[in-house]
Amino acid sequence: MIQHFRFGSPIRTDSVVQDIPVSSDAVPFLTADADGWVYTMVPDAIVYGLGEMPRGINKRGWHYVANNTDESHHGENKVSYYGAHNFLLIDGGPGGDLFGVFVDFPGKVHYDIGYTVHDTLRFATEEPDYELYILTGADLNDIAHQFRQLIGRSYIPPKWAFGLQQSRWGYKTAEDVREVARQYKENDLPLDMICMDIDYMQDYADFTINKERFPDLAALAAELKAQGIRLVPIIDAGVRIDPEEPTCTEGLEKGYFCKKEDGTPFVAAVWPGKAYFADFLRPEVRAWFGHRYKVLTDCGIEGFWNDMNEPALFYSPDRLKAFLDSMHELRGQDNIVQEEFFARVVGGAMGLMNAPEDYASFYHEVNGQRVRHDKVHNLYGGSMTRAAGEAFADLRPGKRTLLYSRSSIIGSHRYGGIWLGDNHSSWEQLLANIQMMPNVQMCGFLYSGADLCGFANDTTPDLALRWLEFGLFTPLMRNHAAGGTRPQEYYRFADQLPAIRSMLRLRYALLPYLYSTFMQAALEGTSYFRPLGFDFPADPDAREVQDQLLLGDGVMVAPVYTQNASGRHVYLPEPMKLYRIRSVDDCDTELLPAGHHYIRCALNEVLLFIRPGHVVPVAKPASCTAQLDEADLTLWACPDENGKAGCRMYSDDGETSDYAAPEHWKVLELK
Amino acid sequence: MIQHFRFGSPIRTDSVVQDIPVSSDAVPFLTADADGWVYTMVPDAIVYGLGEMPRGINKRGWHYVANNTDESHHGENKVSYYGAHNFLLIDGGPGGDLFGVFVDFPGKVHYDIGYTVHDTLRFATEEPDYELYILTGADLNDIAHQFRQLIGRSYIPPKWAFGLQQSRWGYKTAEDVREVARQYKENDLPLDMICMDIDYMQDYADFTINKERFPDLAALAAELKAQGIRLVPIIDAGVRIDPEEPTCTEGLEKGYFCKKEDGTPFVAAVWPGKAYFADFLRPEVRAWFGHRYKVLTDCGIEGFWNDMNEPALFYSPDRLKAFLDSMHELRGQDNIVQEEFFARVVGGAMGLMNAPEDYASFYHEVNGQRVRHDKVHNLYGGSMTRAAGEAFADLRPGKRTLLYSRSSIIGSHRYGGIWLGDNHSSWEQLLANIQMMPNVQMCGFLYSGADLCGFANDTTPDLALRWLEFGLFTPLMRNHAAGGTRPQEYYRFADQLPAIRSMLRLRYALLPYLYSTFMQAALEGTSYFRPLGFDFPADPDAREVQDQLLLGDGVMVAPVYTQNASGRHVYLPEPMKLYRIRSVDDCDTELLPAGHHYIRCALNEVLLFIRPGHVVPVAKPASCTAQLDEADLTLWACPDENGKAGCRMYSDDGETSDYAAPEHWKVLELK
Repeated sequence: MIQHFRFGSPIRTDSVVQDIPVSSDAVPFLTADADGWVYTMVPDAIVYGLGEMPRGINKRGWHYVANNTDESHHGENKVSYYGAHNFLLIDGGPGGDLFGVFVDFPGKVHYDIGYTVHDTLRFATEEPDYELYILTGADLNDIAHQFRQLIGRSYIPPKWAFGLQQSRWGYKTAEDVREVARQYKENDLPLDMICMDIDYMQDYADFTINKERFPDLAALAAELKAQGIRLVPIIDAGVRIDPEEPTCTEGLEKGYFCKKEDGTPFVAAVWPGKAYFADFLRPEVRAWFGHRYKVLTDCGIEGFWNDMNEPALFYSPDRLKAFLDSMHELRGQDNIVQEEFFARVVGGAMGLMNAPEDYASFYHEVNGQRVRHDKVHNLYGGSMTRAAGEAFADLRPGKRTLLYSRSSIIGSHRYGGIWLGDNHSSWEQLLANIQMMPNVQMCGFLYSGADLCGFANDTTPDLALRWLEFGLFTPLMRNHAAGGTRPQEYYRFADQLPAIRSMLRLRYALLPYLYSTFMQAALEGTSYFRPLGFDFPADPDAREVQDQLLLGDGVMVAPVYTQNASGRHVYLPEPMKLYRIRSVDDCDTELLPAGHHYIRCALNEVLLFIRPGHVVPVAKPASCTAQLDEADLTLWACPDENGKAGCRMYSDDGETSDYAAPEHWKVLELK
Repeated sequence: MIQHFRFGSPIRTDSVVQDIPVSSDAVPFLTADADGWVYTMVPDAIVYGLGEMPRGINKRGWHYVANNTDESHHGENKVSYYGAHNFLLIDGGPGGDLFGVFVDFPGKVHYDIGYTVHDTLRFATEEPDYELYILTGADLNDIAHQFRQLIGRSYIPPKWAFGLQQSRWGYKTAEDVREVARQYKENDLPLDMICMDIDYMQDYADFTINKERFPDLAALAAELKAQGIRLVPIIDAGVRIDPEEPTCTEGLEKGYFCKKEDGTPFVAAVWPGKAYFADFLRPEVRAWFGHRYKVLTDCGIEGFWNDMNEPALFYSPDRLKAFLDSMHELRGQDNIVQEEFFARVVGGAMGLMNAPEDYASFYHEVNGQRVRHDKVHNLYGGSMTRAAGEAFADLRPGKRTLLYSRSSIIGSHRYGGIWLGDNHSSWEQLLANIQMMPNVQMCGFLYSGADLCGFANDTTPDLALRWLEFGLFTPLMRNHAAGGTRPQEYYRFADQLPAIRSMLRLRYALLPYLYSTFMQAALEGTSYFRPLGFDFPADPDAREVQDQLLLGDGVMVAPVYTQNASGRHVYLPEPMKLYRIRSVDDCDTELLPAGHHYIRCALNEVLLFIRPGHVVPVAKPASCTAQLDEADLTLWACPDENGKAGCRMYSDDGETSDYAAPEHWKVLELK
């Protein structure tokens, strides 16, 4: 059951698709005090949810702020990332409370989940106008399913989007891109996409192509597509101020950019230098900006990533001027006290970026009303995704277009996926990736994944391999790196190449299972990844597991995420069959009883556990998704007590929007 | 066996105390190439050592630079912390190579331990002049023991230094300090020391006391000592430029400060504003500076911590001027390209702190020769510790004085302990504390520990408790916090107070075992903490363990370091007796077989494992070390196959330097 409460006069977010009457009952489970809503957690209560946030699958013991942020230093002590995913699922344990909370609000929401007092959960919106939904149901899976019905069907990408994406900030020419394709081919590594970061644009201006470095993008796209590789260019939120560029001039002429209090367009510097910001909250602006992607779809581009759309701001000219004036004052002084040095020099420079004062200095138009940006900040990135997603239905009718975004809000999961932002190359971030996946997907973002190997900092050969051994299970599988870092395309790791090749091929071989699981999750509102506690709510050991995930109906994964480990502890809530996989053709298997196990897993191995009665259909590896032969399948299986095992397998053309036909499904059974 | 090699004309570091003839043999195990020394690691080779560095007990898979650094953001991707601990211990596994390497060099040393190529270890000194020691022996414990003989006996603090230290940057008045003592007493929490951060000084000038806020330090010290509490003030490396202050005027007059190329004293800003830096590499400067502590020992102060002695530099006036000039130039520009914004504005401001250019701009006098600071940088902090340690022998003859430092080099372990620097409140840093301890102690720094609860950032009640549950085993046990963070004195956590009280009392009850283990380690060159692989080198599972430690002869600890966990996996390389401790008087025990176990450990519990044949003598808890009654002991024990168990227990007056008398030892046996 879903109860809907309304407080004040909320701004419409379009996060939900069901029209649930507003209740006048008392809000169950929660009590209100002057600081917001309060709930007392029993000692073993678990709080799931919040999507893209730091820390464990269980969010207890920290505070969080839904406040979409361009965060360059990920870590357990951050309180905000790129998404506003205001869904909590509280599991009070056997016999205890069990309910979901969705705070439907476009501004900041503050959470204290046992951060100040260990047993006390608090949350509060920054303004008094919001919608609140309380969900109850038979069990965790049921409530999660109801929530997905409430927020609508998740975005479905083309099937080739389940292949490998290779990306790097720094492919500066068509030749750089070709070299990546060539190296993948020469090293016999499968690949489906090469992402183009901001380097392909002219002066980092959206919907432009640098003709010197990319003389014929359409030809390049066609040439690579013939090899099974799609180009996936980036689009940034900020529109370069450039009187020669139609995106700038049209937007200006039509008054489509966000405005300052005095009615002039708001300006801030991002990659293209000074830029304007389209007011994506207006339907006509979304339609206009979304159709600008035609510049690239006309070149045969079939996929995009939207970036910098929190929006990130390097600085506003006003604040930079104030900082330089402040430095000018200091220049005249003989001595600077330390407090002033840290506050004005160091703090002043660092504080130019993504400054709250800037977010409070411009306005949107919402239903004809002027609304200050910071009040609706979390809607911005998701509305950019929506702009593209809505336009693609027109630009590429009946076709699926790949789209994923950095910033998001629940609701934008209907228009695109997300990647988990600018992480860094560390074992801690590999664990963060594992722990974020079920919570992000719980909030509707099924097509998601982290930058494998890590975006910032230099990766190491063992981290690259171990991260791939988890990444090969994530729907969005992309290797992406920041400029200036050590090259990390998978062919760069000479000493680990055989193992990396085997793991990439394994991904493709597992696509029948992974794609079927994804399509089931999207079409039926079920889960792709989920915590063990969802299926085993009465098992205290299963509830506590923070580093293993259930994947669809039949599989559990338990990645190795510590350096120099050649094994790990795994908890099995039921007997399962272990596949210890070195390659599709080289596994050893073992039927393991329920309980705690220490399981060896060398650097070149990955662990896959199949649940009783289930089958994982395995294809022959392929060099790209187009080459995948799903007719010739091997069935990996864990028979149940009666010797039976099966699965439902989904297959379609992978390109059109004809998802729903029942004939896409067939049942495979162990003979 | 220890082989000694010499390359070029090394600067003497005084790191070693044994005079080992220089060998003309080929260096064993290692090969040289143009970039330094190379060693190929077998797949399961473990590299121990490097002391105070990030990552696991096993240092494989990362790069490191011995380059003492004021690092404010600890994390796995850092390459340098505060200490230069150039000792490696390489264990090639059963039948494989087994050797130690000590690089005796006062400048930067670069290590690549499988960071670039997974099986390749490389290291190189920044200059061609250094001593190299290669150690071989019967086993890991033997080589570690030989290394400790080579570098000399570790510093021994007074016994009361094994009590709890409460610290905070922000105790601004005598009344603030009294309030801490009062609250500990009122809440029935034991305490032995209150640390005074820079707030007690006049204008942050060394060897001064702010008379307004601390009107009578001697009276305050006496008042607290009567309650069993010592005051432990901080001393910073930078000497405030102040014509009224004798430390400044004397040092200037005698020419004791480091000089720039033009012979004028080097100046940089730190907490006191512009400061000079004593040239601790000169014996006469050490003697002078060390005797300046008399200002405080005359007030009855018996313990100190030396800080900011890498030395940390906020900025030099020259570089600040250059930055402000650069900002002045930008002020005249209409537009700033993004590269310039990040390089000049953000990078320029951040780059003012601890700038390599500043470290290359001043000089020391070494044996009458002028030596540029960066060539001997890693000697600086340790030489400040040595200055104090040497002077205490004169200022407080026959007495032990508490001393620990932030920066260090092997050799300074003979004069003081270290704390692990400015960590932050995170679960990751709790694990880092666990993993750093055996490597730091391997390098001679027995009296060591991390800032419990975490220094920077806000801690949480559960982290405070879990960290204490490990910290109660570390020789230096200090709760310390940065200014501006949420208060974290142990009495602040109302909801966890009973458990915190039990854990603090447990520390005191365990002192007979912990102090005996410490004194044995110091006097006999054995270990306090060590990795499991040291005692079980043929057991692959034991070798791999990165989150359990052996503690002395008889104990293994396995701390819980993940949030929301109510248990953990533990590996037992031999049968052991588990004590699951809620308080000294409330434990349950279980004899566990060797192997992998999942062991419950609620938030208010700590796990202690006793090895077969061993005894842990347990005293009654006390409110401070002076109150500890070691006559009335309970023996916790794990009898061996013959039902026998025992231990050697050390007791002395805890204050004088009369350590070595054999009658301090007695044998306790299970009846």
